[in-house]
Amino acid sequence: MSDPWQECMDHCIEVTKKAGKMIRDALQKDIAIMQKSSPVDLVTETDQRVEQLIISSIKEKYPTHSFIGEESVAAGSPSVLTDDPTWIIDPIDGTTNFVHRFPFVAVSIGFTVKKAIEFGIVYSCIEDKMYTARKGKGAFCNGVPIKVSGQEDITKSLVLTETGFKSNPEHFKTMTANITAILSIPVHGIRSPGSAAVNMCLVACGSADAYYHMGIHCWDMAGGAAIVTEAGGVIMDISGGPFDLMSRRLIVASSRAVAERLVREIIEFDVGRDDQ
Amino acid sequence: MSDPWQECMDHCIEVTKKAGKMIRDALQKDIAIMQKSSPVDLVTETDQRVEQLIISSIKEKYPTHSFIGEESVAAGSPSVLTDDPTWIIDPIDGTTNFVHRFPFVAVSIGFTVKKAIEFGIVYSCIEDKMYTARKGKGAFCNGVPIKVSGQEDITKSLVLTETGFKSNPEHFKTMTANITAILSIPVHGIRSPGSAAVNMCLVACGSADAYYHMGIHCWDMAGGAAIVTEAGGVIMDISGGPFDLMSRRLIVASSRAVAERLVREIIEFDVGRDDQ
Repeated sequence: MSDPWQECMDHCIEVTKKAGKMIRDALQKDIAIMQKSSPVDLVTETDQRVEQLIISSIKEKYPTHSFIGEESVAAGSPSVLTDDPTWIIDPIDGTTNFVHRFPFVAVSIGFTVKKAIEFGIVYSCIEDKMYTARKGKGAFCNGVPIKVSGQEDITKSLVLTETGFKSNPEHFKTMTANITAILSIPVHGIRSPGSAAVNMCLVACGSADAYYHMGIHCWDMAGGAAIVTEAGGVIMDISGGPFDLMSRRLIVASSRAVAERLVREIIEFDVGRDDQ
Repeated sequence: MSDPWQECMDHCIEVTKKAGKMIRDALQKDIAIMQKSSPVDLVTETDQRVEQLIISSIKEKYPTHSFIGEESVAAGSPSVLTDDPTWIIDPIDGTTNFVHRFPFVAVSIGFTVKKAIEFGIVYSCIEDKMYTARKGKGAFCNGVPIKVSGQEDITKSLVLTETGFKSNPEHFKTMTANITAILSIPVHGIRSPGSAAVNMCLVACGSADAYYHMGIHCWDMAGGAAIVTEAGGVIMDISGGPFDLMSRRLIVASSRAVAERLVREIIEFDVGRDDQ
């Protein structure tokens, strides 16, 4: 029997391309319009339109499948992963980047069956880089195979993470303390591109050696998780345990050694779960 | 009389294109070679070769001009700005990015006469974006005019800066305290792309609203300073005083209001001067 999910993946790539074009078109709107209307409204409107485009196109072809989408969840849909074939969708990963036209903005889609990720697609649509990975068949950028750097030495590593204001002062303090601890190892540097999905792909193609984050969502991680795993990377929980898609936290790295070295430095804070 | 420095600028763009190609070729070397040899050696070798290409090409055409180049200064040449026509050259801005193939790597050249910047060129060579600016004639990316966002509200701003290990513990502490203070204003976010020259261009084209840094060099700033100024941006010292090319520190921003708000948050530390 042929691969039952390959057809879904092919369809996913097609609809992701259309979604990326819709985002690029939104960014090319007259800058005067951008500045008159609130950027927050623009991003919400585009986010919803792109997610509708994706979900309606997939539902038509696969009416029995389930969906977890950032905008649908915001509108009250459940965010519980079941055994059903499930599409986990972030229509615009890097919404702050989108508002500022900062060049890392992605459509991210992961597809799970029996809670395991079967394939992932991340389309960094300003860069026009289409990252794809099917379980067991490798990872690609624009059709070219990619792999992680293989770096095992944390002191030669480029590490990605994202900073942001946190209303809980203890979380805020821990977030900056973690960055200080990692810089002090020392590492080659820390970069913050502003898109979780793109960060995972940068590790997948060897442009960075690790990425960690607490506070992101399953739709930020599902597509990239497939890509970094198929590129030979390591994915685990912040605690060093197995990666949990609904846990809102992860480490990805070029090697187990680098990931485990980060586990030793990072102090956790409670960010809740997507399915609670 | 026609513009006496336009011919220099045209020549500069041509040689910068060649330099960018040399960098891209170096990055395409077999990854196995990259991993066998030390990446630090590779970057030093490419840095020196690119600077030689640039300086020899310019010297041939303008034998009386002066030069300040990152690699020449490392080799003992003086780094004092005079009234002579002077080319200030960073052959590879973002050397850590270069080692990791992280996609922001630039050739940066600024040209001064009587200590004032006449034009600046920044070529982000992996992205293939050529930023150019001639004093009084505007700023361009690949020939298309660019301008800053004009954002005046710091709380709606995307701010760029770079983190890194600092051997002086007080400097290290101040650097992270500054990031915490700025995130707490709050701002939309902080991004760290890893190239000073590209950061200035991101502000120039409105993809970010501000960039600040202490500890960089005149060759990191000279090209970008022309571009961000001609794009309508504000450039000043970390203290709020006039920008000083040899001071190793700067703020650039989309507006005076945003720059001055950053001045109020940033605590200074002593990074010395390029000309001492």
